[in-house]
Formats: sequence, structure tokens, C-alpha cells
Amino acid sequence: MKKLLDDPENAVDDSLTGFAAAHADVVEVHGLHGSGPVYVTRAGGAVEGKVGLVSGGGSGHEPLHAGFVGDGMLDAAVPGAVFTSPTPDQITPAIQAADAGRGVLAIVKNYTGDILNFETAVELAEAEDVEVATVVVNDDVAVEDSLYTAGRRGVAGTVMVEKIAGAAAVRGDDLAAVTAVAEKVIANVRSMGVALEACTVPHVGKPSFDLAEGEIEIGIGIHGEPGRHRVPMASATEITRLLVDPILADLDLAAGERVLLFVNGMGGTPQSELYVVYGRARTLLEERGVTVARSLVGNYVTSLEMQGASVTVLRLDDELEQLWDAPVRTAAMHW
Amino acid sequence: MKKLLDDPENAVDDSLTGFAAAHADVVEVHGLHGSGPVYVTRAGGAVEGKVGLVSGGGSGHEPLHAGFVGDGMLDAAVPGAVFTSPTPDQITPAIQAADAGRGVLAIVKNYTGDILNFETAVELAEAEDVEVATVVVNDDVAVEDSLYTAGRRGVAGTVMVEKIAGAAAVRGDDLAAVTAVAEKVIANVRSMGVALEACTVPHVGKPSFDLAEGEIEIGIGIHGEPGRHRVPMASATEITRLLVDPILADLDLAAGERVLLFVNGMGGTPQSELYVVYGRARTLLEERGVTVARSLVGNYVTSLEMQGASVTVLRLDDELEQLWDAPVRTAAMHW
Repeated sequence: MKKLLDDPENAVDDSLTGFAAAHADVVEVHGLHGSGPVYVTRAGGAVEGKVGLVSGGGSGHEPLHAGFVGDGMLDAAVPGAVFTSPTPDQITPAIQAADAGRGVLAIVKNYTGDILNFETAVELAEAEDVEVATVVVNDDVAVEDSLYTAGRRGVAGTVMVEKIAGAAAVRGDDLAAVTAVAEKVIANVRSMGVALEACTVPHVGKPSFDLAEGEIEIGIGIHGEPGRHRVPMASATEITRLLVDPILADLDLAAGERVLLFVNGMGGTPQSELYVVYGRARTLLEERGVTVARSLVGNYVTSLEMQGASVTVLRLDDELEQLWDAPVRTAAMHW
Repeated sequence: MKKLLDDPENAVDDSLTGFAAAHADVVEVHGLHGSGPVYVTRAGGAVEGKVGLVSGGGSGHEPLHAGFVGDGMLDAAVPGAVFTSPTPDQITPAIQAADAGRGVLAIVKNYTGDILNFETAVELAEAEDVEVATVVVNDDVAVEDSLYTAGRRGVAGTVMVEKIAGAAAVRGDDLAAVTAVAEKVIANVRSMGVALEACTVPHVGKPSFDLAEGEIEIGIGIHGEPGRHRVPMASATEITRLLVDPILADLDLAAGERVLLFVNGMGGTPQSELYVVYGRARTLLEERGVTVARSLVGNYVTSLEMQGASVTVLRLDDELEQLWDAPVRTAAMHW
């Protein structure tokens, strides 16, 4: 294993130390170097009069979630150990820090550990008189039930939920309204991914799974959980079709509708290849009469250095489009 | 070789097709599908009354350079084949397209092929009455003379040259003044990189070089050209010191000075590791009494899916800091 790390056991702490220093104008990282529970908040704290947004999950998916803390998106993020849910003692203070009196929305990806730990943390925060609502993101159409998950997994569509709900909060929506916007995104976003090569968790030291020479895994999870099937290596056009067809089948898009198309890199795939997949996916959508009105291409929900990509499609309406376009200023997304 | 591509021979064209569609609000890509010389311009063309900026080089370093075309940075970019200089017949129309009557600055990375082809293209553009100045970026302190290069190589510091000279052009500087700003950046920026694993050029189909298990290359070039030495895999702290010490020796920074610190990913290294390197590099600078006033961390000048990183340090003054902070709106840099 070759990684730019010191002690693999301290990988998350060391990385967050650099992250905090590089983005001190946007974020504050709490609990570094064993000083307490680890969580990330906006520099300057909660915004008076605004519903707070909190998300979190295992590390190794950077920039998710800490990279999306800032104006127009999250107020706090909670990074667990690599591919491991954050604990309630981390999540609760993050929820409290995000509260400015109008309540907090917790955005949770659908993994059993995340669900349980957020539930406990929400109860603890409510006991401290913070009003909390929770939404569960489950955009991955690859499999029903999976390693770590009952029901569908939450993957790259989480970025759309965080961005759009964040903009609704800035707009002044109350907690029920922000929650409704988040649920609308969840109801209309679907994803599916492919792995070409596995990643290596630092403290494990060997690849999370084995793919044979010339073999790829369609429907891979962001922790390397099994997907739908392993198939021989194929062209970008063929692979993209294997990702887009199940999304379209599930989302039931009609000709004339418009979408946001997001091609996400898993961490180890060159940007040039992501644009090839984007181009192929766009063609498949346009062939169905669907208009690609907004686009995002890049490494946003990664699996360490996994080689591969995922495609996410979000059905847009005027409201979602306006909220997507609203200004955002975070470490990883800025416009 | 597993890559998300169709025909490897069409990799650049297929990728630019997706790039053009995803960023049609920012860029226009000319010459796709064999329709003519390939180059990228701002959507809407040159800006009246502003000096134009053009850069270019081999593909495979995305988002460099096409990702930096847009408001506040480049007016045109010229992508060659992977790791291959663009040709004069591509560069000349890009220079002409960038000209709005106040002349054009060509920003060239110091590789023999790029230098020669830009020289020819500049002569052709001048014959068409475009005033052109050229600067050569040579920030890599790893080696003097190298495969493909006489003198130092131009690497990640190119991003700083393009951003800051771009802001000077927006400020209204004439061609001589924009050129002087670019030269000031070049005089004050230094970089050095490390490779943990090689990349594979699509149409070659095998890794560009071999690194043994547990071996890394210090001072690697962005095409996999040899660096200073191969050493056994080491900790992030030790590797970062091997990159930062030669930069500091060359830049001759004094206590009390302030810098921009840029940790660049080569394409296949997780963002979490880049932040570890950033944190270590920052500590080394602060130990010398140098203030890190601005930061950039991410994949900006890549080598396909190479695993590794580079460190870039730019000595700042008030002018460079203001120009760095000025608004920018491109596919890959936006604030």
C-alpha cells in the first residue's frame, strides 16, 4: 500500500487538520488531535434565523460531507472513521451547533449504522430542546438491500439534497418546508455506479475487493459493497448504458422533462474519462427527449482512490432549478 | 488497461465533446469530430477592450488548460493529443480568436515541443496582424533539463500564472503590463512533485514507467519524466519535506514573507491525502516564519490517473494577492 499518510490510524485526523487550515475562512473543525468529538461547522457558527442543516457519514468519500459546509449548503458535517458511521457523541454536538432556533434538518445516507447513530443523536439533541427533522437519502438504484443497508443505499444524489435543501434554508423556509424540499429531491434523484478497480482502506492495507484483469463491477456501492453483476470490461458507451438504463427505468422520465445530469468520479479516474461518460449519458437522455438543463462533473462523492464513476439524474422543476442555481460558498462547491 | 473510453484514439475528442456540452455556458469547443483544428474559446468570444490570454499543451492534465477558460482567466486553450504538444494549426486560430484588438499573451509551459509549436503559431498570428507576447512557465525545481525539456519544466505553477495574469487583463492592463504580471508570477513560483504509481496513456495501453512495490519517485514530471531520485515509500511527513525543502532553497523565502500554498493532485490520489500533504507543507513553511496567506488543494494539473501530488509555493505581495482573489468563472475554478 502506497499512500500519502503518516500513521494510517490517524489518517482522518491528519487530513482534517490540513482541511481546517486550508479553509479556515469557511469552516471550523472541532475535536482535532483527540481534543473531543470530531465535527465540522461553518466558520462563524449557525446563521441567525435560518434552519440548520447537518449531514455526516464515514470518511473516505471526500469532499462529502465536510467539503459542503458553508454558505448555501450545510451548517455542520460529521466525519466518521474511514467507511464507518460517525458516533452519536459526534453527531449530537454538530446538531446543536447548527441550531439557530429554527430547528435542524439531518440529512442521512441510508446505511444501517448511519441511521441508528443519527437516530440516537437526534434523540439526545431533542432532549436538549433542539427541534430536528431527518431525511434519508436512498438514490442508488443498483440493489435493494445490501451489505450495510436495508433498502437502497444513499450515494452521490446526496450532493443534490444538500445543495438544494441548503438553498431552501437560505431562502427562509421553516423546518417543515426545508424538509419537504429535501424529500422532493430524494423522490426525484437516482444514481448508479461502476468500479474498474477497488480502493484500499488505510488501516486495512489491502484492496477492499478483487476485480479480475478485464473485469468491472456494475452497481458498485461507495464502500465497495457488491453491485448487480460483474461483467467484462467494455466501452464507455456500453458501460454508461448499463448505468443510465436502470436509472431511467426507475425514474420513469417522460419526453419533454428536464434534468440535472451529474457524473461523479470515485476518486481515481481521470476527469477526461468522466467527461466521456457525461457525453454518452447526455446522448442517452436526449434520445429519450429529455433535456439536460444542469450539469455537474467531477469527484464529489468518492471512495478513496477507487477507479470508477457514477451517474446521477435529478428530475428538475422550476423550484429545484432555482435552488440549485442559488449561490453557494463551500470548500468543494462554489458559485 | 481499464479506462472509461471508447476508441482510445478518440479519447481527447470524446472527452472534449462531453466537456463542451457540460459547460456550454462558459466555453465553446472548436474542431470536434474532425471538423477542423481543435481549440477551446470562451462562450461569446473575446472580450472587447481586454488583452487576450491563450495557453495550451498536451491533453491528460485536465482540468489544465481548457478548464481555466472563462471570465477572469484564459480566453482560449489548445489541447494537444495526450501528453503531446498542440500543433501550430491549432494554436494560431486560438490566438486569433482571443484577440480583441489589444493583443494576446501566450502562456507556454517549458517543453521543447510546446515552445517550438507556439513560436511558429505566434509568427503566423503576427503575420495576421495580431500582437502577441509569450511567457514561458518553468516552475519545477526538480531537475534542470529533462526528457522533452531544456531548462526547468513548467508544471502546476501554470495555474497561478493563468489566474493572476487573467485578473490583470480584466483589470484593464495593456499587453506589456499583463506580460509583466505573468513574469512576476513565474519569477516567484516553484513546484515539485512525487509519483506513487504511474499512469497509462490510452493509446499506449501500458503504464508510462514502472515503480517497484514500495518505491516512489521524487521530482517526477507531469508526463512521468524522470525526477531526482527513487526512494523507498516513506511517510507523508518525510515525502512532503523532500518536496518542500528544494522549493524553499530555490525561492529563498525569508521569515515574515507570505505565500500561496498549492497542493495539487496528480489525478489518482484521494483528496484526503492531499490535505495531509497540505498540512505538513504548511507546518514546514510556518516553522520558517513564512505565512500561508492563500491556499489551493485539489486536482488541477493532473497526469491522467497517476497517483501522487505536487507542492507549489508562490511568494505573494499585495498585487498578486488581490489578483488571485479577483472573481473567476471557469469550468474548474470559480469564485
